[in-house]
Amino acid sequence: MFRPTLSLIDTLRQRRQRLANLINFPAIIWSGQTSPRNFPANVFPLRASSHFLYFAGLPLSNAAIRLDTGKLQLFIDDAKPSSALWHGEMPTREEIAGQIGADAAYPMAELESWLESVATIPSQDAGTWTQQTQLLNRWLLPQQPLAGIDLELANAIVNLRLIHDDAAIAELRKAAAVTVKAHKAGMRVTKSAKIEAEVRAAMEAVIIAHNMTTSYSSIVTVHGEVLHNDKYHHPIQPGDLLLADVGAETEMGWAGDVTRTWAVSGKFSSTQRDIYEVVLAAHDASIAKIRPGVEYRDIHLLACTAIAEGLANLGILRGKAEDLVEMDAHALFFPHGIGHLLGLDVHDMEDLGDLAGYEQGRLRSDRFGLGYLRLNRPLQPGMLVTIEPGFYQVPAILNDPNFRSKYEKTVNWERLSEFADVRGIRIENDVLVTNEASEVLTAALPYSVSDVENLVTNP
Amino acid sequence: MFRPTLSLIDTLRQRRQRLANLINFPAIIWSGQTSPRNFPANVFPLRASSHFLYFAGLPLSNAAIRLDTGKLQLFIDDAKPSSALWHGEMPTREEIAGQIGADAAYPMAELESWLESVATIPSQDAGTWTQQTQLLNRWLLPQQPLAGIDLELANAIVNLRLIHDDAAIAELRKAAAVTVKAHKAGMRVTKSAKIEAEVRAAMEAVIIAHNMTTSYSSIVTVHGEVLHNDKYHHPIQPGDLLLADVGAETEMGWAGDVTRTWAVSGKFSSTQRDIYEVVLAAHDASIAKIRPGVEYRDIHLLACTAIAEGLANLGILRGKAEDLVEMDAHALFFPHGIGHLLGLDVHDMEDLGDLAGYEQGRLRSDRFGLGYLRLNRPLQPGMLVTIEPGFYQVPAILNDPNFRSKYEKTVNWERLSEFADVRGIRIENDVLVTNEASEVLTAALPYSVSDVENLVTNP
Repeated sequence: MFRPTLSLIDTLRQRRQRLANLINFPAIIWSGQTSPRNFPANVFPLRASSHFLYFAGLPLSNAAIRLDTGKLQLFIDDAKPSSALWHGEMPTREEIAGQIGADAAYPMAELESWLESVATIPSQDAGTWTQQTQLLNRWLLPQQPLAGIDLELANAIVNLRLIHDDAAIAELRKAAAVTVKAHKAGMRVTKSAKIEAEVRAAMEAVIIAHNMTTSYSSIVTVHGEVLHNDKYHHPIQPGDLLLADVGAETEMGWAGDVTRTWAVSGKFSSTQRDIYEVVLAAHDASIAKIRPGVEYRDIHLLACTAIAEGLANLGILRGKAEDLVEMDAHALFFPHGIGHLLGLDVHDMEDLGDLAGYEQGRLRSDRFGLGYLRLNRPLQPGMLVTIEPGFYQVPAILNDPNFRSKYEKTVNWERLSEFADVRGIRIENDVLVTNEASEVLTAALPYSVSDVENLVTNP
Repeated sequence: MFRPTLSLIDTLRQRRQRLANLINFPAIIWSGQTSPRNFPANVFPLRASSHFLYFAGLPLSNAAIRLDTGKLQLFIDDAKPSSALWHGEMPTREEIAGQIGADAAYPMAELESWLESVATIPSQDAGTWTQQTQLLNRWLLPQQPLAGIDLELANAIVNLRLIHDDAAIAELRKAAAVTVKAHKAGMRVTKSAKIEAEVRAAMEAVIIAHNMTTSYSSIVTVHGEVLHNDKYHHPIQPGDLLLADVGAETEMGWAGDVTRTWAVSGKFSSTQRDIYEVVLAAHDASIAKIRPGVEYRDIHLLACTAIAEGLANLGILRGKAEDLVEMDAHALFFPHGIGHLLGLDVHDMEDLGDLAGYEQGRLRSDRFGLGYLRLNRPLQPGMLVTIEPGFYQVPAILNDPNFRSKYEKTVNWERLSEFADVRGIRIENDVLVTNEASEVLTAALPYSVSDVENLVTNP
């Protein structure tokens, strides 16, 4: 775990130099610490702060870095001798400092001498944000909006982290590759699986075997219409579609995020195939449009239009695609955004609210068909985004009396009822914006009907 | 997940009636909530409070129960309609109340009308203990010692949870069975694995496939001498021993906890086998001694004596076993306790400090060979304990200059050096104290040298 190369040190130096070009005050970033599960010694795995990982490179616990004019000071305590029995020999403070190219290193207790005029970002775990609040003598709660130099720091970090450097892209490629392998394992095991949990197990086993972790709670379900489903107990049956939204996260914290939907039997029914092709057309059109300068919101609207058009062609919606999108009819079946930023977080920098996702001055829309869009910026080379159109029959939406009456004539409800075996379909890939157009980092995982059918049928 | 049977309701009623027999004040127990991982919407899986699970039976989030004279009031908010899109349809408050046999059910906001003279147990997550502190207007930090009626409540709960009822034992058997399957999968995959993570993956995949979770961070390592090793990146090589300490936890929160040690090649070397047999003898002697009325501390000392005797027979220690234990020489190689309570927590009720582990009036020993003992009580039918003797060559102990000089003549250091290929061995089973003697719930997983060799060699 602690074997960075010289190039990591160079990368980290470049990142903090770039930060120094954007702010003229010091910043302290805490790594965070583990959170207890059911008793203090039984903890959830450490997930160091993404901002810390970006500048310090290593998933340290109970550490902090102070960044000032391109220099990095590391604050961490050496492990107590007694901890060697339980946790083994740990690298010393000086060794860690060497590994990340720190300019100086001190015990944590020294941190309080370096607090003047520092900005920070609130940590996610209570132990750390309590410490931050006490040391800096101002409330630093993870969900509170940032202000003053903390906000300036956050905006500077957004500026950097939006555009991935080579080292970041190398890690993101690793995450993508293992994510692809996990999905293939899921497809291959489906024919012999009885419940969703068995498919999930095959997928997560690939991630664990690569000494990675999942970047979010896996969704592996025959109830794809529940967008963030975290239940895995349902039996899987031949007529079902299985939707799997599973991503790997590298040891250094970089995330993959991929969704595939396949038929449990291997073969899509004709209705399942019809809708799948609609979603696929929206997916392909979206990716084809990605290039620097294009507004991500326009890609979302393009996908919405493609879905509306596809559903109109199938006789499920009535009207012209553009008009249907204008009246949010697409959102009855595609109620979320076309995707989001991806990086150290699966929704990158979402701990900062919409600071990263929304260009300064832009706000979330009130429209049913736009409000869930997580990214609203012009694309730039080096941004990594997901493209994830979907189709869902969500009872809470389709049975809502207001929607039923508003869209009574827009939807051909009788025709829709013929598609009852399509609860949820999503196709999601991780797409890097390049100087010319884009590169799909997860392209090695097939998504055409025939390729997916092949993988499931001939495991 | 939400399909309890009538017998669950009966069990829960019995548990709260038994609590009512022990305390004469009301108690409120919070379920707890999820903790953020890297941003608020990306959380660690929910782990409801074990005390809550014991009395309420279901892993609910953001709920509380008030227990008073055998009655249960449930406090939980119905899901917002908008959450159905992301999380699906949730059971209503009334449905949940019916499932757990609640006597009444209210929204969370009503809780503040029911706070008079109530005792509680601090939750582990910050969101909940902050809420507890504010509502009850006294500090309730998870690591703070309990006092007053909170302490009385804790002692009453310890009284109940120490002795497992039939429903608990049924769940613990489920956890044991899946834990056994996970270990077998680990043994079977070892010959084809290149790094520790691949063995871990095969084991955890079994647990995930049964829709369970690990009850603690798995230890799967060729560095068995690091007691709580949480690294999985080491290559595994033919001469190595692999130590796996992995347990499954059922959906309702009941834990398994098993350790096996096997040779990567399938065959133990003669030195590995010699030490393994010493640990095995301590294991067998300990289990043979378990029966109601026996002091767990005496079982620990028996295991220490067996290990000292075995090491003396191998020429590693010099002297009589009893004398060696008297001078803590066994603890150079077996520095932890023989085991602990097992139930809803892998160290059951360790959130209450030593209240559960130590009989009232007893304190931890200062002795190197006894201080890590987590359980010091006379055994009673219905208690579930682990028995887990081990042998480790911990550099932090064996290279400690004080120990080197204190035990200069007690250890035959030259002889010891012949056992360099034995870094760590542990054999751990989950043992239920019965009316007659004991039952090993994890007996289906072999641990004799030949059986373990067979499983690894013929996968």
